[in-house]
Amino acid sequence: MEQTANPISLDTATQRLAEGVLAGRRRALSKAITLVENTREDRRRQANQLVSYLLPRSGTATRIGISGTPGVGKSTFIEAFGLFLIERGLRVAVLAVDPSSKISGGSILGDKVRMEQLARRNEAFIRPSPSAGTLGGVTRRTRETMMLCEAAGFDVILIETVGVGQSETAVADMVDFFTVLLLPNAGDEIQGIKKGIIEVADLLVINKADGEFRDAAKRARRHYANAVNLFRPKNPHWKTPVVCASGLGGEGIDTVWESAGKHRALLEEHGLFEKLRRQQRQRWFQQALEDSLLERFQAHPEVARKLPELRNAIGQGQMSPHHAAANLIGLFMGDPQQN
Amino acid sequence: MEQTANPISLDTATQRLAEGVLAGRRRALSKAITLVENTREDRRRQANQLVSYLLPRSGTATRIGISGTPGVGKSTFIEAFGLFLIERGLRVAVLAVDPSSKISGGSILGDKVRMEQLARRNEAFIRPSPSAGTLGGVTRRTRETMMLCEAAGFDVILIETVGVGQSETAVADMVDFFTVLLLPNAGDEIQGIKKGIIEVADLLVINKADGEFRDAAKRARRHYANAVNLFRPKNPHWKTPVVCASGLGGEGIDTVWESAGKHRALLEEHGLFEKLRRQQRQRWFQQALEDSLLERFQAHPEVARKLPELRNAIGQGQMSPHHAAANLIGLFMGDPQQN
Ligand SMILES: Nc1nc2c(ncn2[C@@H]2O[C@H](COP(=O)(O)OP(=O)(O)OP(=O)(O)O)[C@@H](O)[C@H]2O)c(=O)[nH]1
Ligand SMILES: Nc1nc2c(ncn2[C@@H]2O[C@H](COP(=O)(O)OP(=O)(O)OP(=O)(O)O)[C@@H](O)[C@H]2O)c(=O)[nH]1
Ligand SMILES: [Mg+2]
Ligand SMILES: [Mg+2]
Repeated sequence: MEQTANPISLDTATQRLAEGVLAGRRRALSKAITLVENTREDRRRQANQLVSYLLPRSGTATRIGISGTPGVGKSTFIEAFGLFLIERGLRVAVLAVDPSSKISGGSILGDKVRMEQLARRNEAFIRPSPSAGTLGGVTRRTRETMMLCEAAGFDVILIETVGVGQSETAVADMVDFFTVLLLPNAGDEIQGIKKGIIEVADLLVINKADGEFRDAAKRARRHYANAVNLFRPKNPHWKTPVVCASGLGGEGIDTVWESAGKHRALLEEHGLFEKLRRQQRQRWFQQALEDSLLERFQAHPEVARKLPELRNAIGQGQMSPHHAAANLIGLFMGDPQQN
Repeated sequence: MEQTANPISLDTATQRLAEGVLAGRRRALSKAITLVENTREDRRRQANQLVSYLLPRSGTATRIGISGTPGVGKSTFIEAFGLFLIERGLRVAVLAVDPSSKISGGSILGDKVRMEQLARRNEAFIRPSPSAGTLGGVTRRTRETMMLCEAAGFDVILIETVGVGQSETAVADMVDFFTVLLLPNAGDEIQGIKKGIIEVADLLVINKADGEFRDAAKRARRHYANAVNLFRPKNPHWKTPVVCASGLGGEGIDTVWESAGKHRALLEEHGLFEKLRRQQRQRWFQQALEDSLLERFQAHPEVARKLPELRNAIGQGQMSPHHAAANLIGLFMGDPQQN
């Protein structure tokens, strides 16, 4: 997708920012990301211009999602993984999607501290999760940040996300290779597998496979490998591997990277990589449309005033949900004659 | 939810229709469903009034979804199931969700023919899938039809849906008990399980467990029971049973009905049944809002004209998806200054 002719013309300030990003200057990149995170109308417009301008210069990095329950060792794993990639001459950006961060608090600082070594490297760029908002807002900003990092020349983008509900799916949708970290349960009794994990994972990693957990990890590995076998793979050419690793001990990191490489080669071999990128862009477009429409709708003063009353009536079974919806949409669209 | 005071006043024609439905008159019910299927603006308004008026008289029937791949025997099973229920003094409505019916064709007629015996019974009401449209449109009409059937006094609503993608999820969302029919694979090699099935099913039925398939069905039953064990249940109080049945031979039908009864009793015991109904109504409201918003958006002439061009630019990577979305939303909302 490297193109020389770019149909978008920017104002001077945005042009300078774009050039700074393309030159790989960290301050410009940080500033561009801050712009993308700004929700003010005019800033949004400028950010849209910037991202559109830089888009043809992105899309070639390897995008890897790292998911898993809180405390499974994602940040520790990412730090080890990042250092491993830098040793191989690669530049690494680390992003996070955590729509709950405002509520749970502290995880931003926590990650900075935990990725201490990686944070000191020039070849790495760590950006904490954007301050909370709707999931739609957070994923939009993460995607755009990813684009900016790619335009700034980062070769690998690692995205950390807590393996809970929709944020996980959102990240799985935006990366090329989605890794789920799992805990080796200490006892013989292994918990049921979280819904949907096997559907989205390109790789399952039993993490903390070290010290006293080593044997439990091996058992968990067999258990999950069995579960994977019961399901149709997401991609008919790829059977989700299940591997053991230890982020803390630096074990199994190479296997994960190798696996990501094989997966990418396979996608390219079958002409699926460009297809994936196109699909991602179209999906983002659709989601962006739906998110912005709903945002505009919910921000409408009359809609906002009427909504709680209708929700209440619906909860009590006093009004048809479709009737109530037609009512609100009519208000929003300024239709005449409402009832 | 039986209420005497109804805050909605209807015009004379709609009032007469409502009374016909409440009296359980088939012609009135058919007419009401046809009204609900009509997409004309003024008809939609009338339908919304009617459904809102009847809503307090619905919500007590047992809603059962029957899903599975084409040819697994859903219609045959439903016919046997329906006759079984009628023998127990119950009135049964059969609906179908099949957004593809216009394309595949013929399935409406096919179902009518296949449910020949059931169709002749006074205690049964069979309504084929509404003529194709968007999934959103089809599910809205199915939900409203379900409400109407409940208001007309049907005790059990059976909804047939092909187990493919989103229509399955839509039906799982609208029923109390979601049953998935599976084939006993003839060979020893049992195919991988379709993604997501275990997440949505309240009951798995190995169908066609008759004749030469009997043993294969038993093997399949063990296989699926094992798979179910690997996953956390959808409801912590309910472990999805896996049973064998034969719609054709009328075997296992009683087990399925018993299972649905146990499930309902369990929900009620834990106070979850009213909660489920409330959740369903709120979810329908949210979906109705999103569907109608998108419908209005896509029907906007300038949006419709610009959309293909933007999709193309996005596919080629020439424009940021979010930028394009902002553009279109601006057009739709009549914002000044677009770029
Ligand atoms: N034994 C062992 N402990 C580990 C390993 N990786 C992380 N830990 C420990 O597990 C705890 C959580 O590690 P994190 O890396 O912060 O986990 P996380 O998944 O990023 O947690 P959240 O960001 O809060 O969701 C810390 O106390 C780590 O020291 C590992 O490979 N082996
Ligand atoms: N052996 C056996 N055959 C069955 C059984 N049930 C249905 N069949 C046969 O399987 C074929 C498909 O049955 P249907 O009931 O139309 O299946 P369906 O799932 O409704 O199919 P679609 O509506 O097209 O998705 C027919 O030829 C039936 O006679 C059964 O219990 N045992
Ligand atoms: Mg972390
Ligand atoms: Mg059928």
